[in-house]
Amino acid sequence: MSSVDQEAIEAHRQWRGKVDYASKVTVENHDDLSIVYTPGVAAPCLEIARDPALARELTGVGNLVAVVTDGSAVLGLGDIGPQAALPVMEGKCVLFREFAGVDAIPIALSVRGVDEIVAAVEAIAPSLGGINLEDISAPRCFEIEQRLHESLSIPVMHDDQHGTAVVALAGVINALRLTNRDFKDIRTVVLGAGASGIACSKILRDMGCEDISLIDSKGLLTVDREDLNPWKREAAGWSEHHNNADGSIPQTSQVMRGADLFLGLAGPGLVTVSDVASMNDGSMVFAMANPTPEIMPDEAAEAGAAIIATGRSDFPNQINNALGFPGLFRGLLDGAIPNVEDAHKVAAAQAIADFVEDPSPDRIVPSIFEEGLAYAVADAVRSVG
Amino acid sequence: MSSVDQEAIEAHRQWRGKVDYASKVTVENHDDLSIVYTPGVAAPCLEIARDPALARELTGVGNLVAVVTDGSAVLGLGDIGPQAALPVMEGKCVLFREFAGVDAIPIALSVRGVDEIVAAVEAIAPSLGGINLEDISAPRCFEIEQRLHESLSIPVMHDDQHGTAVVALAGVINALRLTNRDFKDIRTVVLGAGASGIACSKILRDMGCEDISLIDSKGLLTVDREDLNPWKREAAGWSEHHNNADGSIPQTSQVMRGADLFLGLAGPGLVTVSDVASMNDGSMVFAMANPTPEIMPDEAAEAGAAIIATGRSDFPNQINNALGFPGLFRGLLDGAIPNVEDAHKVAAAQAIADFVEDPSPDRIVPSIFEEGLAYAVADAVRSVG
Repeated sequence: MSSVDQEAIEAHRQWRGKVDYASKVTVENHDDLSIVYTPGVAAPCLEIARDPALARELTGVGNLVAVVTDGSAVLGLGDIGPQAALPVMEGKCVLFREFAGVDAIPIALSVRGVDEIVAAVEAIAPSLGGINLEDISAPRCFEIEQRLHESLSIPVMHDDQHGTAVVALAGVINALRLTNRDFKDIRTVVLGAGASGIACSKILRDMGCEDISLIDSKGLLTVDREDLNPWKREAAGWSEHHNNADGSIPQTSQVMRGADLFLGLAGPGLVTVSDVASMNDGSMVFAMANPTPEIMPDEAAEAGAAIIATGRSDFPNQINNALGFPGLFRGLLDGAIPNVEDAHKVAAAQAIADFVEDPSPDRIVPSIFEEGLAYAVADAVRSVG
Repeated sequence: MSSVDQEAIEAHRQWRGKVDYASKVTVENHDDLSIVYTPGVAAPCLEIARDPALARELTGVGNLVAVVTDGSAVLGLGDIGPQAALPVMEGKCVLFREFAGVDAIPIALSVRGVDEIVAAVEAIAPSLGGINLEDISAPRCFEIEQRLHESLSIPVMHDDQHGTAVVALAGVINALRLTNRDFKDIRTVVLGAGASGIACSKILRDMGCEDISLIDSKGLLTVDREDLNPWKREAAGWSEHHNNADGSIPQTSQVMRGADLFLGLAGPGLVTVSDVASMNDGSMVFAMANPTPEIMPDEAAEAGAAIIATGRSDFPNQINNALGFPGLFRGLLDGAIPNVEDAHKVAAAQAIADFVEDPSPDRIVPSIFEEGLAYAVADAVRSVG
């Protein structure tokens, strides 16, 4: 066990939970009690019963996000179950609060079926101002998010999909600025066709990218393949990709040839120096697998990549969800926005990109610790309305 | 609107939620982040995946109670819906934390069916160390509590039933001490056959009371009545009550004649001076309807009651749930007790009664603000195991 692991276990043992469910009020005598609880509490209850919109003014509901998981796809750990996922969910709650003043509670679910998860989240929704789905495996996550998006009137976002997509987009925006290109002119390869790979591809399409190739463990998603779930099938059709003439599925090396942008969301060491060298001049390589990227930054540089990003904090250009979700939800909550739409995600990405005053190849995104970032993102999101 | 009402609304507007979902940890740099979140958080996750019992040591789950409602029977306000109930749920969370250091979150449910409520609570249970059901209308509350009690391995308690029963029992214990009687020798009348009335009767039966008469809005629960739900029917059989010879249902005045203990859980002014005067010598009158009791204390005294209690803080002997639930859950959580049983409730009641050093007719229960009460209750509950 590494020293970080030991330190983390010891710290968690001391914290016994990272969220502190404190009271904003003291209750020391009957006068206090009569305002906090009975009989005084009846008055705000009746106000809300009269006008439901007042719940946001008289309770904490308007600032409260649930970080909801079933523990089926936790970090790089996979399916470890709901309670074992709680340290991650609590960590996310802490980031919500520390970075953007968003209150958040960890909710680990005992159920796995799409219907059951949707029902559980719908059931607790009156307690909440927003829902951050987290570490729920694909393809269930797509349907769960879509159904909750349609049924609820509070924002629902699966951060593994859209958090990554928003921050990767912010990086691509500045990378294109630095290399004087436009979304519509680049050819993109996305390695990994899970939750985040598909979401990254979608947001790039929203920005005008016309040529995107998604690759899963078997190779390129093509319209000829019969092993694709509905979400992968749709992605295969975005650019009408086909199998090779001999019927074989195009593999990563073949697909990367002549590409401008590579997004890696798959796993360690899946891309070689010659793969990157085969890309167009001015290539952009986002190797975001954690903790070990698809290709290490020094190798990508050696292969001629112009812009290199990873998911790691010890290299430049960390594509970290924490650049996005706190400010994104801050804006959604402040605007009482009932649904998170593509325009909100794009606005968040643009705000993150614009927060970098002088973009350079080693600085296409800000650090998550830069003062004011989350609130700049929030303002942009709220402005969308 | 009264001045307390106005003050309560203004205070709630300023608080915007009474629970402060703070972070126990600061996240100011990558070292902090690597322990709180990735990559360090993976280590405690894996520890819990290996040994689920470690969730209580490495996360906040072992100290977290959800205060769950559907908003169907809120205080004296009735069915005001889930969001309008949030000020009460938040208030209860504050009392949990302030009185006993129990973390608590308000959960307001959008669903009403027994199956749907049970499913929702079961779904979120991995996030929790205990469940306090609150302000759910009878008779659904009985079945919901029973089913969750059977299916979950964390304590589930509907406080409107058992919280009241525990604290009323504490008062009765000291009232009997003062008047030198025993549970088995007294005749009890319970006015109000809802959640709390039935729970009070049950706990008195556990203590040895053999003669208990429950009265609902139509009169005494008798085995002859055909309008009773299964829970009321069971209660009617506890002492084999019958209709009058002419077929009429015995009314309050008739039932109270010759009783020793009256528990009122019904509504204002339902009992007269002559009703109390018709009770046995040394009568105990617990008129607990809020805010206006079944009979005012001065009238009960005038009618000869030896011991008088109400639900109000401006009279002696306030039977207030807050004397019970914080310490009861503190003990259940500290002992990692998987189910709350009758023995835990009785132990809590006994501890509350024993906390009064010199019981007198004006002091049969402690004040909720007495230092150490919740922890005395917790110790007693934990000792049961």
